[in-house]
Amino acid sequence: MTGAAPCDPIAASPLRDRAQSHFAQLARRTCAQLEAFDGRGKFRNDLWERPGGGGGSTNVMTEGALFEKAGVNFSAVWGDFDDAALKALGGASRNFFATGFSMVLHPRSPMLPTVHANFRYFERGVDAWFGGGSDLTPFYPYEEDVRHFHGTWKAVCDRHDSAYYPRFKQWCDEYFYIPHRKEMRGVGGVFFDDLRGDLEKTFAYVRECGDAVMPACEPIMERRRHERSGERERAWQLYRRGRYVEFNLVYDRGTAFGLATSGRAESVLMSLPPLARWEYDWRPEAGSPEAAASAFFQPRAWI
Amino acid sequence: MTGAAPCDPIAASPLRDRAQSHFAQLARRTCAQLEAFDGRGKFRNDLWERPGGGGGSTNVMTEGALFEKAGVNFSAVWGDFDDAALKALGGASRNFFATGFSMVLHPRSPMLPTVHANFRYFERGVDAWFGGGSDLTPFYPYEEDVRHFHGTWKAVCDRHDSAYYPRFKQWCDEYFYIPHRKEMRGVGGVFFDDLRGDLEKTFAYVRECGDAVMPACEPIMERRRHERSGERERAWQLYRRGRYVEFNLVYDRGTAFGLATSGRAESVLMSLPPLARWEYDWRPEAGSPEAAASAFFQPRAWI
Repeated sequence: MTGAAPCDPIAASPLRDRAQSHFAQLARRTCAQLEAFDGRGKFRNDLWERPGGGGGSTNVMTEGALFEKAGVNFSAVWGDFDDAALKALGGASRNFFATGFSMVLHPRSPMLPTVHANFRYFERGVDAWFGGGSDLTPFYPYEEDVRHFHGTWKAVCDRHDSAYYPRFKQWCDEYFYIPHRKEMRGVGGVFFDDLRGDLEKTFAYVRECGDAVMPACEPIMERRRHERSGERERAWQLYRRGRYVEFNLVYDRGTAFGLATSGRAESVLMSLPPLARWEYDWRPEAGSPEAAASAFFQPRAWI
Repeated sequence: MTGAAPCDPIAASPLRDRAQSHFAQLARRTCAQLEAFDGRGKFRNDLWERPGGGGGSTNVMTEGALFEKAGVNFSAVWGDFDDAALKALGGASRNFFATGFSMVLHPRSPMLPTVHANFRYFERGVDAWFGGGSDLTPFYPYEEDVRHFHGTWKAVCDRHDSAYYPRFKQWCDEYFYIPHRKEMRGVGGVFFDDLRGDLEKTFAYVRECGDAVMPACEPIMERRRHERSGERERAWQLYRRGRYVEFNLVYDRGTAFGLATSGRAESVLMSLPPLARWEYDWRPEAGSPEAAASAFFQPRAWI
């Protein structure tokens, strides 16, 4: 057998299977890391099947010491779009396969940011692509936190393609923009979609993105977990969470896809905050930390 | 002048002007009625202009004795749809005129229902039509309240066309349906859109609808305002308000229209509750009042 590489059954299997395995494993690993980090909360796990094909695993923690709500989703779904889904999502091919990982962290303390990460692999007819990203939504303006987050993602990007970070950072600024508010939902990060071409190269990048999810946010949470806050900070956090709801329900492609394909609503909407507030025509006082934070929600070169 | 009817300048003016006057006056009258009924809260009034043409008057009460948030909007906007609006709203003609009245009441007490009413007149190119309706979203299952609400609307409908109530009641059941939850946001009422044909007949009906807004809901609130409630009822109210947010941001045509035409975001989103809650995969206990209320959120013949 000298000279012949042993056959690797995983490497030889179709990309859709390898992507699915990777996202399933990433979800399990992320849950374990989050439980260890929180120290008290445990994930409740729900396995679910999608009537039209496929299913997933939804993990939610609600009684965390740090996390008011933390959600980690894995899913692999397939089938044919019905008319409503085709209309909502566009395109011509009804046949689809989608597998992905997503995570949303809503910390209790307003001094800790909301964190989102999502990576996915799609097939539609003969077309195939990766998408995903991670973005940060702080409530208070700590520049070093934002720089750490963007710096971690830039390092991952740069190891694969020096064009990735500038491109995906800008894409993120544009994607997580709330037009009716003329602001982003947070401070961005990286976002990409429709990454076709060399799918093996992209998959290698997406795998490393998965490894970076916790290193990008854990040090920030560690640094701020003992900061004090009171009613004022809580009110601001709930108010900003309202914007998070607006973005997710009005503009987010993943949410639209999930609801239009009759995904499990509780899993699709796991990203929504436990509590959110709307106050008519409210604006933070000039010179306040809340006003300084608001200035963070416009595209900016962080590093 | 015997025998000659005096010229009525209002009746002779174009329908768009008369509709606009009517909705502006209905908004003022409704604010006065709500202040009198609340007994403590006062409306804050904001007049606003829309950059592309027109404007409106937004009235919000937040410190009411009864109302945690009450909003009354009047607007008259016109101009040309841009590409984004055309894509979001469909159709071919860019030119539009829209005037309307809307009201959303979010009472403090979970024993009082959320109430919504909205009536509007549209022109697009040479096309013109009325739309609108009113629906009730109770948190606790009082059948007599729902019967009073539906009964009031049926009486208004029957005075104009015996086909209206059955048709508009069903339309309401279908319109305020949340597909991903497989339930309505409340118990319905009446809803209609694209009412073309005899516009004078429709306008007479729409005017009487305006007169019925308060009689349809005030007796219910009067009857329940002294009912006691505690933390459990408040938690349920906030949870159900989450569904209200889901409907308004994902499905509501008026919200989509407002956001797509660069309406004033604070006025468009005035309908959102002051505070809302999401809890992963939560279900009310079998046999509880909350479970009984949930059964109300499916289409039913109330009268």
